[in-house]
Amino acid sequence: MASATAKPMRQQVEEYIHTLQDEIVSAFEKLDPNASSFKRDSWVRPQGGKGQSCVFSMSPPSSERSNAHVPILEKAGVNISVVHGILPPAAIKQMRADHSTLPYDPDSQASLPFFAAGLSLVVHPQNPSAPTVHANYRYFEVTEPLPEGQEGTGKVIAWWFGGGSDLTPSYLFEEDAKHFHGTLKGACDEYGQELYPVFKEWCDKYFYIPHRGESRGIGGIFFDDLSDGHHAKLSDETPRPKTADELFKFIQSLGNAFIPSYFPILERRISAPSDEHKRRWQLLRRGRYVEFNLVYDRGTKFGLMTPGARIESILMSLPETARWEYMSELGNEKGSEEEKLIEILKKPRDWA
Amino acid sequence: MASATAKPMRQQVEEYIHTLQDEIVSAFEKLDPNASSFKRDSWVRPQGGKGQSCVFSMSPPSSERSNAHVPILEKAGVNISVVHGILPPAAIKQMRADHSTLPYDPDSQASLPFFAAGLSLVVHPQNPSAPTVHANYRYFEVTEPLPEGQEGTGKVIAWWFGGGSDLTPSYLFEEDAKHFHGTLKGACDEYGQELYPVFKEWCDKYFYIPHRGESRGIGGIFFDDLSDGHHAKLSDETPRPKTADELFKFIQSLGNAFIPSYFPILERRISAPSDEHKRRWQLLRRGRYVEFNLVYDRGTKFGLMTPGARIESILMSLPETARWEYMSELGNEKGSEEEKLIEILKKPRDWA
Repeated sequence: MASATAKPMRQQVEEYIHTLQDEIVSAFEKLDPNASSFKRDSWVRPQGGKGQSCVFSMSPPSSERSNAHVPILEKAGVNISVVHGILPPAAIKQMRADHSTLPYDPDSQASLPFFAAGLSLVVHPQNPSAPTVHANYRYFEVTEPLPEGQEGTGKVIAWWFGGGSDLTPSYLFEEDAKHFHGTLKGACDEYGQELYPVFKEWCDKYFYIPHRGESRGIGGIFFDDLSDGHHAKLSDETPRPKTADELFKFIQSLGNAFIPSYFPILERRISAPSDEHKRRWQLLRRGRYVEFNLVYDRGTKFGLMTPGARIESILMSLPETARWEYMSELGNEKGSEEEKLIEILKKPRDWA
Repeated sequence: MASATAKPMRQQVEEYIHTLQDEIVSAFEKLDPNASSFKRDSWVRPQGGKGQSCVFSMSPPSSERSNAHVPILEKAGVNISVVHGILPPAAIKQMRADHSTLPYDPDSQASLPFFAAGLSLVVHPQNPSAPTVHANYRYFEVTEPLPEGQEGTGKVIAWWFGGGSDLTPSYLFEEDAKHFHGTLKGACDEYGQELYPVFKEWCDKYFYIPHRGESRGIGGIFFDDLSDGHHAKLSDETPRPKTADELFKFIQSLGNAFIPSYFPILERRISAPSDEHKRRWQLLRRGRYVEFNLVYDRGTKFGLMTPGARIESILMSLPETARWEYMSELGNEKGSEEEKLIEILKKPRDWA
């Protein structure tokens, strides 16, 4: 999408996610200067495009660990990718269901060039009182094919922004939930009062584990297909950012809200007392996180099915360790802190 | 399917899997008399049927554990279920793809009664040198609907047996692989020399993790849709058990082969030296087990999508603990024991 400025939107988005990745990784490194740095891996996609993964993980288990500094994070990935390629007719058809602005001729066997740029992060802290967080902001373009041999980019025929951010605590602290939702609501409200409620509900619906009858966490916001066309979940009268420039500003506000939405929570929970019982519950909740990501998450499923996809980047969202117990009593004990979380996961609440 | 004896096949299968469950659970309990017993849970399916789960799990982590007996098993489930109900038209259509004997009229909106009985087991031992094992034997029937108000069971219009058993080591011991495959081959060969090679290849294809380019383990046998009709993977001339009685005998031979196929392996590995490195690799391999089961295993996926399914029984196949590392060096170090396993997982070998 060509924007009002001279730079094409794809370039603006690429520059922004690069800067945001740097800011977020630096913030985590500054918070825990005694921990090892994030591992920065640049990669190239043979079919077109590139990316940078910044990943933190604790040293592997070792009996000497007790003497070492226990890092704040257990596992974290802050990844960007900027890829392009060709959407085959079947992919266009499937994508059409969610993206009404994408032209689709059922008789056409044509493939279309695409471009996708995004930042995706998942952070699993060590302390069971500190919640896991996830955020993802992305821009997608479909263009007209260029004649054989011609260099450059064809005319943009569809484009949209998508993204969101959500929190997954093992123990519920209401002030954390209010702070997280409140910060996201604040970033949304500037662009239209109806955005946050719609995106909050969308998030609750998306991060749901049907076979457990539970949400993955306490939600946040989730949205897709934001462009200047009609939107399935927002009435045409809803005041909202519509042009590519407006939407890019909106995405930047949300991306910039990540640090203020999460760091104050992390800072006040990292020194909370912990014990084997809390750790065990945290690992059980991480098992649920794995269940959601592997069974339901569309991004993960799409990634796993894509030939040539970078599996290590896709699965960096999984926790370092997870646990499953048959018929665990944890979460069922009346009046326990664990049960308090489960109640909220079974019946999402409004937090802002 | 009515068999030559007076008892209906569904009853014979039910009795057999009940006995087999008892034998297998008792054998594990006898092997480790100092460990706690399996937890026996009987359950009833509100929509029709019942089952019994026998599950072993280690005590939850606790700092006092070092003084306690370390059990041979870390987690194990030996479950039977005998369920009946109604297959809606969509389920019949989907099932038709794999079961050629199932009559299917694309214009029909009819639902059909079904009956399914099976035993399913997964055993994850504690020692990293001792392999995980899985086995599943099942019988399925589809019957004609009975007129409203009439009690009993309609005429059987399709039936089949399915099952298999496979081994998932973290470290490869060739003698274990040969013993496991050899025992299964021995049980198959009695019923036709072509069965084992076909079922071995089927197993390698089924327990494959495309996004990793690896098999889940070193295989075994896998089969489905065995009845007296045409079979997609066995030519009509292949000597094989065909009648329900013959097939039931075949299934019993395989079920009875479980203990001799696995226990000698378990017994010789449970005291192998272990360390943090081996444990770490075992947990990474368990991560792969989780990936296969949640992303690809048809039984698990079908279970998770079934309303009213007993999730705890379906997910008892997941290990107690699993681990994911970003870009782990384990498995890539030339000449290491870990690399030796990966080579076999990338290129399955013949073992018997």
